[in-house]
Amino acid sequence: MTSFCSRCLWLLKMSVLFLALGIVLFMFRSVYLYPESSSSKAPLPQPSLAAGMLKLLPEEHVESLFTHDGIWLFPKNQCKCEAWKHQESYNFENAYGQTDLPAVKMRRQAEFEHFQRREGLPRPPPLLAQANLPFGYPVHGVEVMPLHTIPIPGLQFEGPDAPIYKVTLKASLGTLNTLADTPDNVVQGRGQKQLTILTSSRKVLNFILQHVTYTSTEYQHHRVDVVSLESNSSVAKFPVTIRFPVMPKLYDPGPERKLRNLVSIATKTFLRPHKLMTMLQSIREYYPDLTVIVADDSKEPLKINDSHVEYYTMPYGKGWFAGRNLAISQVTTKYVLWVDDDFLFSDKTKIEVLVDVLEKTELDVVGGSVLGNTFQFKLFLEHSKNGDCLHRRTGFFRPLDGFPNCVVTSGVVNFFLAHTERLQRVGFDPRLQRVAHSEFFIDGLGSLLVGSCPDVIIGHQPHSPVEDPDLAALEKTYSIYRANTNNEIQFKLALHYFKNRLQCAT
Amino acid sequence: MTSFCSRCLWLLKMSVLFLALGIVLFMFRSVYLYPESSSSKAPLPQPSLAAGMLKLLPEEHVESLFTHDGIWLFPKNQCKCEAWKHQESYNFENAYGQTDLPAVKMRRQAEFEHFQRREGLPRPPPLLAQANLPFGYPVHGVEVMPLHTIPIPGLQFEGPDAPIYKVTLKASLGTLNTLADTPDNVVQGRGQKQLTILTSSRKVLNFILQHVTYTSTEYQHHRVDVVSLESNSSVAKFPVTIRFPVMPKLYDPGPERKLRNLVSIATKTFLRPHKLMTMLQSIREYYPDLTVIVADDSKEPLKINDSHVEYYTMPYGKGWFAGRNLAISQVTTKYVLWVDDDFLFSDKTKIEVLVDVLEKTELDVVGGSVLGNTFQFKLFLEHSKNGDCLHRRTGFFRPLDGFPNCVVTSGVVNFFLAHTERLQRVGFDPRLQRVAHSEFFIDGLGSLLVGSCPDVIIGHQPHSPVEDPDLAALEKTYSIYRANTNNEIQFKLALHYFKNRLQCAT
Repeated sequence: MTSFCSRCLWLLKMSVLFLALGIVLFMFRSVYLYPESSSSKAPLPQPSLAAGMLKLLPEEHVESLFTHDGIWLFPKNQCKCEAWKHQESYNFENAYGQTDLPAVKMRRQAEFEHFQRREGLPRPPPLLAQANLPFGYPVHGVEVMPLHTIPIPGLQFEGPDAPIYKVTLKASLGTLNTLADTPDNVVQGRGQKQLTILTSSRKVLNFILQHVTYTSTEYQHHRVDVVSLESNSSVAKFPVTIRFPVMPKLYDPGPERKLRNLVSIATKTFLRPHKLMTMLQSIREYYPDLTVIVADDSKEPLKINDSHVEYYTMPYGKGWFAGRNLAISQVTTKYVLWVDDDFLFSDKTKIEVLVDVLEKTELDVVGGSVLGNTFQFKLFLEHSKNGDCLHRRTGFFRPLDGFPNCVVTSGVVNFFLAHTERLQRVGFDPRLQRVAHSEFFIDGLGSLLVGSCPDVIIGHQPHSPVEDPDLAALEKTYSIYRANTNNEIQFKLALHYFKNRLQCAT
Repeated sequence: MTSFCSRCLWLLKMSVLFLALGIVLFMFRSVYLYPESSSSKAPLPQPSLAAGMLKLLPEEHVESLFTHDGIWLFPKNQCKCEAWKHQESYNFENAYGQTDLPAVKMRRQAEFEHFQRREGLPRPPPLLAQANLPFGYPVHGVEVMPLHTIPIPGLQFEGPDAPIYKVTLKASLGTLNTLADTPDNVVQGRGQKQLTILTSSRKVLNFILQHVTYTSTEYQHHRVDVVSLESNSSVAKFPVTIRFPVMPKLYDPGPERKLRNLVSIATKTFLRPHKLMTMLQSIREYYPDLTVIVADDSKEPLKINDSHVEYYTMPYGKGWFAGRNLAISQVTTKYVLWVDDDFLFSDKTKIEVLVDVLEKTELDVVGGSVLGNTFQFKLFLEHSKNGDCLHRRTGFFRPLDGFPNCVVTSGVVNFFLAHTERLQRVGFDPRLQRVAHSEFFIDGLGSLLVGSCPDVIIGHQPHSPVEDPDLAALEKTYSIYRANTNNEIQFKLALHYFKNRLQCAT
């Protein structure tokens, strides 16, 4: 009886003990596992979707979701250039003879691989973070200049308590250290690619982590080092970008900010001096002192009596884009205005308005209109293994913030104002000798943000034939060069195929 | 009695139940909280560092740790240009008069802010991940082209079990959707900036997350959208980079890969036709058919009878870098070799060797030596609020991989081979009219990877005066232009101050 009673008491005690434990466990459970249930007042909806019936949207639906201007802008294995609506479609391969093509493809691939190597392409696959990592760390935006040192922000350990903490950091393109002053046995590998922290104090661990530094040790431009942070089985990885800052190339507009210290006009002429002279006269009516840069590949050099005209002669018939590239290479002002040699300035040709647009927006280039023609077009690129697909559509993407009459697009007419430094960076490919225009905007894809403001208008000289027999002869020769011959077209298609590594276009 | 016995049995049952629970809890605790203690055999070290004595390394120690070539490459509030060893030191502000300086500073700041706006600078502070987030997500490398759609990889929920799961995704520059086919009440906000998932099935939740898509909706170049992923109080944030791919500009070396289809030679001349002609002759001894591009700003144009020389005339005395920029603007081959007009080709001037280096490495520019002078120098940049500090040191950073006799550096002598497209992107600033050289490599900092191979040697024509009186007169005028006048030096210092936004240099 006594013994029974004592066992009974013991059971009672144990019961109470476990009951207490149970309550603690239950509270923990309810607070931690169902945080909502405690807070949320309204009854929760019970969406009905059995885990069994997992399925994807039908492809037609996905196509309709992510189609823009008739182009399905979703990753696919292969892009196509099917003629769409009244669009033409070009297959650039056709620019080469079938017998040459295999060799051309090999050369193109070899050149592309060299290009990729230098650009650090293709980029590595995205870095994925696992769930429930016990670390705080910087997922994005840590940058260091080559050979420089930076503190790595946001490093922290918030794992469970332990008698001893061991955290290891690893880098590959640089070395690690910590500004924390600790005994050697706490931090090992200072100034090496692997840094190990070993301490029994969480406070010490986090103090050391908060002061970890990364030092770039190899002189490289634009590389990404993936640094890892490990403890037991948990591994966090984050990128450290090694890169030089962009070197600014600023232009001093001068104390009075005169237009002539902000803008130069550039043009290219060939075998039609009378048009050029007429254009120059029209410029002087409205802008008496702006610098005008003229590139000329005619046979005879001209005499131009204008102290603000810079005149350059080129080998005969060197070509249209060579001349444009020469002209912009000589600009020393922040902005350059491009005009053709047969344009005509009027009181609607307000350069100041275009300057105001570039000053107040992020645009690199802003076009006006030539007698109402703005020639706005959008360019879309689709990736594909053996060359991208280019799609061209007339029109614009969106209105320009702050300028309701202007828009953002990919390409504009031959009358535009541009940031000189940006224009020079893209350049006009001197390989394009004759008819060429859009080629420049294709080369500028991704590096030039282009806008269009139709209210700034320039005129065009009449196409009526000239009286003077010499000039007429020149114009005749000019028209021959100006003609977009079949060879020229083939050359341009081949250039898109090889140079831009495009496969086709619509 | 009976009642007591039943209560006693109940207690017994409860005890067993809680005992079981207790054991489970204990096992969980031992496995989860002390994973090492179970695995590690050796006794753990007990580093001695009391959390109380947290301290940082003394500044002198930090300086010594992160000093390179005498420059402390660690972030500081202010950089200085103290003359170091036998280095000179320049304070670029001194190029301006004290009365002009305040206005100059304001103009420079305004131009710098415009530049920053267009470059998306300054970059936002790093994105920090908190510890123990219940999500898997991509920390780095997710990219989308403007207006395109991508699946977001690596999204996953691994939080604790719950009767109902609610996960919300938010974007700011684009919209979100999922390819998972679900009832409307499970996924809300498809095609909008906020997507909400509500389900009682973890499997369904993860299926939906695995198929989330991001669509860029604003046409922009190079922006970073920070997408957030939320559940209860946990928030993960990751970057989605909106950017156009770099448009390749490849050159076709042609079926036989002849040197003349790979390389053009570019030079600039002024008032010393005899030197130019001697140089051209020396080129033809070794490279009979390479295209040579000549930019000339002398008074009288030359007659050059060489079908492979392209000759360009400029306004008189337009200047040194203007001419260099003109010359490279006309190149149509993959590589361009820069030479001065008074150099002399010899059998040691092996262009093929330099081509081989650029073909097999990631260098953009590789210099040779002019009679043994390689003029190698390194450039270091230190950031500072009111302008960076530039440090120049002779020598190189490291040997060039694969070419033991070549090195990687920042600047080289006036005899170098370069990737045409890269060279044109940096360009020679036409504002630099007279003595200039390093200015080009400073402009190229961060965009040109430069190497030097001393074994490729070009000669230099003797400085002995000419007999011919006309030529002697020309050389006299030339020497006046060539002189590095005090005004010229002031102009260059001012250019570094304003254009490159540099504060000082050593």
